[in-house]
Amino acid sequence: MALTETSLIERYFRAGGAQRADVRLGVGDDAAILKVPPGAELIATTDTLVAGVHFPPHSPPASIGHRALAVNLSDLAAMGARPAWALLALTLPQIEEPWLEEFAAGLSALAREHSIALVGGDTTRGPLCITVQLLGLAPAGAALRRSGAHPGDALFVSGCPGDAAAGLALEQERLAAPAPAGAYLRGRFLFPSPRVALGEALRAHASACIDVSDGLLGDAGKLAAASTVAAELNFEALPVSEPLRATLGDEQARMLALRGGDDYELCFAVAAAGEAALLAQLPPERWGYTRIGTLRAGSGARVLRAGTVMEFSHSGYQHF
Amino acid sequence: MALTETSLIERYFRAGGAQRADVRLGVGDDAAILKVPPGAELIATTDTLVAGVHFPPHSPPASIGHRALAVNLSDLAAMGARPAWALLALTLPQIEEPWLEEFAAGLSALAREHSIALVGGDTTRGPLCITVQLLGLAPAGAALRRSGAHPGDALFVSGCPGDAAAGLALEQERLAAPAPAGAYLRGRFLFPSPRVALGEALRAHASACIDVSDGLLGDAGKLAAASTVAAELNFEALPVSEPLRATLGDEQARMLALRGGDDYELCFAVAAAGEAALLAQLPPERWGYTRIGTLRAGSGARVLRAGTVMEFSHSGYQHF
Repeated sequence: MALTETSLIERYFRAGGAQRADVRLGVGDDAAILKVPPGAELIATTDTLVAGVHFPPHSPPASIGHRALAVNLSDLAAMGARPAWALLALTLPQIEEPWLEEFAAGLSALAREHSIALVGGDTTRGPLCITVQLLGLAPAGAALRRSGAHPGDALFVSGCPGDAAAGLALEQERLAAPAPAGAYLRGRFLFPSPRVALGEALRAHASACIDVSDGLLGDAGKLAAASTVAAELNFEALPVSEPLRATLGDEQARMLALRGGDDYELCFAVAAAGEAALLAQLPPERWGYTRIGTLRAGSGARVLRAGTVMEFSHSGYQHF
Repeated sequence: MALTETSLIERYFRAGGAQRADVRLGVGDDAAILKVPPGAELIATTDTLVAGVHFPPHSPPASIGHRALAVNLSDLAAMGARPAWALLALTLPQIEEPWLEEFAAGLSALAREHSIALVGGDTTRGPLCITVQLLGLAPAGAALRRSGAHPGDALFVSGCPGDAAAGLALEQERLAAPAPAGAYLRGRFLFPSPRVALGEALRAHASACIDVSDGLLGDAGKLAAASTVAAELNFEALPVSEPLRATLGDEQARMLALRGGDDYELCFAVAAAGEAALLAQLPPERWGYTRIGTLRAGSGARVLRAGTVMEFSHSGYQHF
């Protein structure tokens, strides 16, 4: 059965997301009509997943759909924005209905969890490639940025970075793990949980925030660069999950926490004077974040271990 | 020289579009921050171009950049929206700086022509594929839709459909044309002119509007279906450019006007009572549109020739 572009989007995605009163016109016309509430600013992002680059080509379709939205949700979380509307550009080598159904189910479940309406899209033939554009809202002037941190600010990360990188290595059979740890780590790669609620809550606390997607050390360095400060992380403070420690041992687990990718956690700075309010109003044990270091005058990102700067190379690191 | 994703977008695109005061934060953070003016609704669309599907792989890079934005501009034109902000998701097999420079120049020139700011994007490795998401604005409640037309409304099309389809055939060497006609037709495929100003002006006149991208007859049928009416086109009324007539002859030129693709013109309906105001306020010879038929009670789309319904098949048409 030949499915036209319109019917593909309509059949699999139109009803999949949340229903929202601010969608004046959704899928089915030349464009969507959306109502931005007074006092809000629009937050816009787009990210692409390419088969074989961002995920193993034979990943579960539900995971591909979930991740296509999750990587964009994580960008909005880093801005402290509340997601609202998504458009999907889906390029497919062929139309396989079971694949599409699972892909749509994975994307739709995450969309509904975050009250996101799917308001448009485009389906084309070609090598498997998924681009989501995600639109969200934040009170005017309140969105978080990478810039804004100062020397002396405390530096935090949510969740346990490194889990997803280990999960991908397990999926690609580059790594082995005991069964329960392996299932957990694979799940962190296949179905990441973007920290949307934390991002919104951080608008009241954080001086700067970034999405951790390319490795914590590098992304902390980007936050520091945008804020014209230096990031100083403490190796001993890095949060490491028990499954990652059971799989790699403590040392390598911390290394992966620094340099893995696909975490979709938040790295954020809080002024020293605001740290007590943060810890009181957003208890770390409930919100799931950890202090990992301090911002300093200067530039770059470094890691201290027992008070000494660790030095990294492409092949690993050397400890002086 | 290795270019990171950020530097690619920043280097080639950040400064390429228009500078707009409503961009609170553009390229370089996790997402853009945009200010929608009070009283406006947000109009959002996305379209993908895949190499070998939507354009010959060795098309001039400036044309690929132009068309990636133009196909989205045409969607906004059909809504009567004014374009404002674009995000670019660019998937490239490799980084070739001359290619990127020309691509960016083509996209940026069209963006500046329409005062569009390039506010974000994502660059990934993979088979050549370009997705633009385009955001525009329209006064609340005023955007045009495909629905809204009634039996008796007059049906119009802008420009000369069929030119771009002939231009593509020339590019692919499936067709030959005398030199000046060929250059004109190729240009209509490579550098289409989305009818943004006409779309905005039509908010005051049209009962329904659609972007003509998949062939006039099919797209007129979609407008009719959304409005629950029938579209009746007159073969003799179809506008045909002189270069297309010189290349194909009058008969085949009109056939291509009905069924070609990639026109990026507007097909719109105007109530009979409003036609005089349309013609007076938007003189057709200045705005470049033609009455091609009438909407009727019923469903479907048909073409009359000398008062008789033409019948089409996949291989052509039969005239009864």
